[in-house]
Amino acid sequence: MERRKFLKGAALAGVGSALATPALAQGGKQLTIVSTWPRDFPGLGISAQRLAARIAQLSDGAFNVEYFAAGERVGAFDSFDEVASGNSQAYIAADYYWGGKHPAFNYFTSVPFGMSTPEWNAWIKFGGGQALWDELSGSFGLKAYACGSTGTQAGGWFNKEINSPDDFKGLKMRIPGLGGQVLSKLGASTVSLPGGQIYENLVSGAIEATEWVGPYNDYFMKFYEAAKYYYTGGVHEPGGGLAFGMNKSWFEGLTDWEKAVIEAACMEEHAASHEENIAKNGEYLGKLVNDHGVLVRAFNDDVWDAFGTAAVEVFADVRAHSDLATRIDDHFQAALRQEGRMMAAFEGTFINQRNRVLGLI
Amino acid sequence: MERRKFLKGAALAGVGSALATPALAQGGKQLTIVSTWPRDFPGLGISAQRLAARIAQLSDGAFNVEYFAAGERVGAFDSFDEVASGNSQAYIAADYYWGGKHPAFNYFTSVPFGMSTPEWNAWIKFGGGQALWDELSGSFGLKAYACGSTGTQAGGWFNKEINSPDDFKGLKMRIPGLGGQVLSKLGASTVSLPGGQIYENLVSGAIEATEWVGPYNDYFMKFYEAAKYYYTGGVHEPGGGLAFGMNKSWFEGLTDWEKAVIEAACMEEHAASHEENIAKNGEYLGKLVNDHGVLVRAFNDDVWDAFGTAAVEVFADVRAHSDLATRIDDHFQAALRQEGRMMAAFEGTFINQRNRVLGLI
Repeated sequence: MERRKFLKGAALAGVGSALATPALAQGGKQLTIVSTWPRDFPGLGISAQRLAARIAQLSDGAFNVEYFAAGERVGAFDSFDEVASGNSQAYIAADYYWGGKHPAFNYFTSVPFGMSTPEWNAWIKFGGGQALWDELSGSFGLKAYACGSTGTQAGGWFNKEINSPDDFKGLKMRIPGLGGQVLSKLGASTVSLPGGQIYENLVSGAIEATEWVGPYNDYFMKFYEAAKYYYTGGVHEPGGGLAFGMNKSWFEGLTDWEKAVIEAACMEEHAASHEENIAKNGEYLGKLVNDHGVLVRAFNDDVWDAFGTAAVEVFADVRAHSDLATRIDDHFQAALRQEGRMMAAFEGTFINQRNRVLGLI
Repeated sequence: MERRKFLKGAALAGVGSALATPALAQGGKQLTIVSTWPRDFPGLGISAQRLAARIAQLSDGAFNVEYFAAGERVGAFDSFDEVASGNSQAYIAADYYWGGKHPAFNYFTSVPFGMSTPEWNAWIKFGGGQALWDELSGSFGLKAYACGSTGTQAGGWFNKEINSPDDFKGLKMRIPGLGGQVLSKLGASTVSLPGGQIYENLVSGAIEATEWVGPYNDYFMKFYEAAKYYYTGGVHEPGGGLAFGMNKSWFEGLTDWEKAVIEAACMEEHAASHEENIAKNGEYLGKLVNDHGVLVRAFNDDVWDAFGTAAVEVFADVRAHSDLATRIDDHFQAALRQEGRMMAAFEGTFINQRNRVLGLI
């Protein structure tokens, strides 16, 4: 019973104005959500709680929504089994946390040299990506929708400058997903840790470097206490999505209206979480630099070229796993190249000229 | 009665799979939507119809939704008065069509050297933009949500190459909003025409050039029959939003749940329409070039510099209009500069390096 000590009211407390009319009817279908983010955590945690509250609100009592942050019901990385087994109805996570179960899960969060968030969204919703995600998740008894995005993530926090690919050799770094495998190819010793465990490992010296999200999310992690060098846009997570992963049998038993409520709430939050990061990153990068002496750097071309060579090997490893992994990589890479060229011709042409003419550097 | 010949069933026909369970209860609150887009028009029209269907579905009978495309109930440019008067409950439009009523409406669609769509979304939802939009729309008895986006628009269709700012002198071009005013400063003769009237004017020679949206939307307009030169990302509409503009008194009379249904549906479609363009632009640019001999060009630096000089004059004109216009311009320009620098450091750093390493030009 201890695991269930967080009642609905408590679970939705702190969500604030996003839940104008709490719909906490006792008679609704049970929707227990386990999250991989700490409670009330700025950025990812707030976004997950906002989504839970919105589903409750839009369902108008049809769902009895309970939300458990990481560790409140199960540990962050136990969320997959908790939902696949039907013990809870949904998780909120980055699906690349399940890369050990199947490497193709990485494409449904973010992969090195992958898609920016608008590109990934286009692939998922209008380019055939959702069907492949359904095939992959379905094989584990799950059904997922995109439900959040960080945008292009920062290259990470380091206690030294990274001036050449050799500077990664022997470096102990927290970096999950295929991005972690790219750095492993360059000689780094990489680990995956949930957000709530990074700070203690960085301060203790168990790891020497870490990536997390971007200025707004990272500010509250206080990584600058142990690592002063902060790198702009990295190779490892250029954009993509977080996952609202549901038990597939449960989802298929919903009415069309109930499914629509969940899908609309996920799509709304998927956009909002990305936009909240864009709106707040500037303010928080300013605080990091001015209040905490953080030194902002960009990886140079030599480092990016080494990322490129390593990424080719990483994708070959993924493709060797299975037919499904190969089909998903084929589909993803083709969509990326078509969309990437278009984004360069339209958004890219404009933004480069705007920033040149207005002097935004 | 002739104006009401489109019944609910007919109005929502053609929406297809987006409306799994039509919620067409007769007893709901009346929500008559007048759109500025032609019926079933690929891109903008389909998006507007999808939104109407989603509101009906999510409301589960609480709204009696009727959708009228441009000209079916009122002319496209009469939609504002139709809704402000309370004769219909909502319009779907680009709010810069109302720039003659107040120039600040331009900021709530897109302005020259303005924000890309993710930047604009961040400003509207998390940067204070919605409150300013509410103040502006509210002064006309309206309340608007973002409900669609084209992404960065193509520079336009021309019957000659544009190699210097002088090539705009005397050019008769369809281009609305402040982008049109920028070209007027360069000597062009600009007009605003709804989408359904552009082709006939271009083919007849009444106009010599036009912009519309981007490859996917533009393909179906057949502008290539009269203008072979197609320019990539332009200065005039870098991104932003279309508007679901409601009668304010009607909106304020809704329950919190009904308001949430409308907001969630608008936010979902706002993201989806942008993503649909990204997913389809590549395919349709290929058709334009390969099937119709379209010649793709980019404006050169001299042309962009001239756009920059003209834009300064255009914004000065807007600011001279009123205190509200000045406050909105101040707020917008500050947010643009902060977000633009961050997008350059994160998304921009990544995309430029990715496209360099992968050879995506």
